[in-house]
Amino acid sequence: MFKAVINAEVLKDAIEAVSTLVDEAKFRITKDGMSARAVDPANVAMVSFEISSKAFESYDATDGEIGVDLTRLNDILGMASKDDKVELNLNEETRKLEIRTGGLAYTLSLLDPSSIRKEPKVPNLELPAKIVLNGAELRRAVKAAEKVSDHMALGVVDKTFYIEAEGDLDKVRLDIPESGLISIQSSGNVRSLFSLDYLNDLVKSLGKAERVAIDLGTDYPVRFTFSIAGGNGSVTYLLAPRIESE
Amino acid sequence: MFKAVINAEVLKDAIEAVSTLVDEAKFRITKDGMSARAVDPANVAMVSFEISSKAFESYDATDGEIGVDLTRLNDILGMASKDDKVELNLNEETRKLEIRTGGLAYTLSLLDPSSIRKEPKVPNLELPAKIVLNGAELRRAVKAAEKVSDHMALGVVDKTFYIEAEGDLDKVRLDIPESGLISIQSSGNVRSLFSLDYLNDLVKSLGKAERVAIDLGTDYPVRFTFSIAGGNGSVTYLLAPRIESE
Amino acid sequence: MFKAVINAEVLKDAIEAVSTLVDEAKFRITKDGMSARAVDPANVAMVSFEISSKAFESYDATDGEIGVDLTRLNDILGMASKDDKVELNLNEETRKLEIRTGGLAYTLSLLDPSSIRKEPKVPNLELPAKIVLNGAELRRAVKAAEKVSDHMALGVVDKTFYIEAEGDLDKVRLDIPESGLISIQSSGNVRSLFSLDYLNDLVKSLGKAERVAIDLGTDYPVRFTFSIAGGNGSVTYLLAPRIESE
Repeated sequence: MFKAVINAEVLKDAIEAVSTLVDEAKFRITKDGMSARAVDPANVAMVSFEISSKAFESYDATDGEIGVDLTRLNDILGMASKDDKVELNLNEETRKLEIRTGGLAYTLSLLDPSSIRKEPKVPNLELPAKIVLNGAELRRAVKAAEKVSDHMALGVVDKTFYIEAEGDLDKVRLDIPESGLISIQSSGNVRSLFSLDYLNDLVKSLGKAERVAIDLGTDYPVRFTFSIAGGNGSVTYLLAPRIESE
Repeated sequence: MFKAVINAEVLKDAIEAVSTLVDEAKFRITKDGMSARAVDPANVAMVSFEISSKAFESYDATDGEIGVDLTRLNDILGMASKDDKVELNLNEETRKLEIRTGGLAYTLSLLDPSSIRKEPKVPNLELPAKIVLNGAELRRAVKAAEKVSDHMALGVVDKTFYIEAEGDLDKVRLDIPESGLISIQSSGNVRSLFSLDYLNDLVKSLGKAERVAIDLGTDYPVRFTFSIAGGNGSVTYLLAPRIESE
Repeated sequence: MFKAVINAEVLKDAIEAVSTLVDEAKFRITKDGMSARAVDPANVAMVSFEISSKAFESYDATDGEIGVDLTRLNDILGMASKDDKVELNLNEETRKLEIRTGGLAYTLSLLDPSSIRKEPKVPNLELPAKIVLNGAELRRAVKAAEKVSDHMALGVVDKTFYIEAEGDLDKVRLDIPESGLISIQSSGNVRSLFSLDYLNDLVKSLGKAERVAIDLGTDYPVRFTFSIAGGNGSVTYLLAPRIESE
């Protein structure tokens, strides 16, 4: 069983963090909360998501799994105002999720969890640099980079975090010294290149977070971690690097 | 002759109530006001519109008829700010309508009234249920229903008004008990099904009305009635039902 | 050399005044300021632009010429907030323009000035009427005219400035008597016809100006002049007339 009440905006932000990469996901439900893990169709980016029962105004669940069409769920949540409560209630018999908000009662057909792509294994990566900064800064840099290129480097030189994008003609660079960051630790200089297509999707959620932790290496995947639901949940993105062609 | 002055927003709202169903209309003008009646090209929805001379700041008219291209008139009214006055003046010789607002003078060619589709007869329907509610509620229900289906049921069960839409996969329902309505009268339970294409058009105007009266039966047309121009006019929509296919 | 700092919005407005007509332009730089002159690809409209060194917070330059892709520059300036400062720095060796704003450093490749269309000669026109009015009025008239036609007349009759557009069916006219203008001087009545395609582009910049001077004749080009950068610069548009077909 699964029966819970949560603030509409908290739920929207949580679902959006996953739906930015995949259209459907399998959520594991336990008495302590919900979690999901998914990889995008091209195997370039992965999301790990968890939200504690404490993020909910009320929460009552036994262990289970539900398959959700995130596009349809987002559509429904889009009808709620941000201060609305959302009531979720799993009907075990019909395998439908009842969603009540603002007087409206939705019945969402669930997907067969076995039809959803298998959850990826999260690789165990040792990344030599860790930068913590405001998510809005990261979003601004991605938006600027998009003006000139389709890929962007993230790097660290001497305790300065930088973002650099170079197109055929123009170039953009943002240097953020230690004083402009929440924190930085690095055992040497690092630099990896990433696709702006993906980064642009990820900053939709990253850009709302007050603190984003970036784990970075050289020509290695990057890991972005941030809190959701006022600290009662967390999202991790892992994004594979592109090979520097020059 | 026809010479009148009216607030721009009042006129825009009035014209929009008609133009949501038809592109051109024949307006009857008398010394007491204007009226129009039109049916949409597919014969599914009908509008009856009337506005009293009291809705105008000044009004001077003899009996007549004008054919108006509503798309072009809307375009012109879109240039006016909502507090602007609009001066209307029919030039009998040229058969053009002079429209002055905010210093701009438009000359709108009228249509030959005989070229416009004949006015429909308004059927005399006895509908067993009458619900009065805030138009914004109705709009919200229609927007929610659109997320899951292309048709929607309106019904009454035991003094509760409900709206229900069922798609191939998902379902949405809104129940409004007597306490959430302005009023409800019903001699038994009723339910009819309507096209969301049409309802979505109609709620553009219905959604602005503080009070919308809904006359409803079972597998019968629905009648929506609301005031315009601060009570100095009224609009009635009649919408044919769809046949419940299950 | 060229090294300057300027408010982002002032620079955006200045560049937009030119980019509305051409995608690339050659800017002449002297120690006193910058200027450009360009004609649109169809040879219908011309822009003369100049901005004094006083418009800049700091300005240091020797004589030179730079070729700029205005679309790419606009894209970059679009990232700046309106109160941001923009630092410009010409790298003579690489022939690139370094643009710093809000912590971001852009490197914009310049165009070879000799690859840009030659600067037009500004014809010496004696135009019998001069009207000065608020740019927003002009924009409003152009927007209204677009509803009914693709061309528009500007004219003066007896110290009244008018704008008139006539489509196949409808007509719009705006008369502004001397009392509604900042000033008007005219040695007789004048009237010329212009393409609304062009006027619609020009009013993007003209519409922001508090004072636009219009020099007008009969079946002659029109000249629009307005200040930018708080009076420390000016823009002149010259637009060729269309031939009145009736």
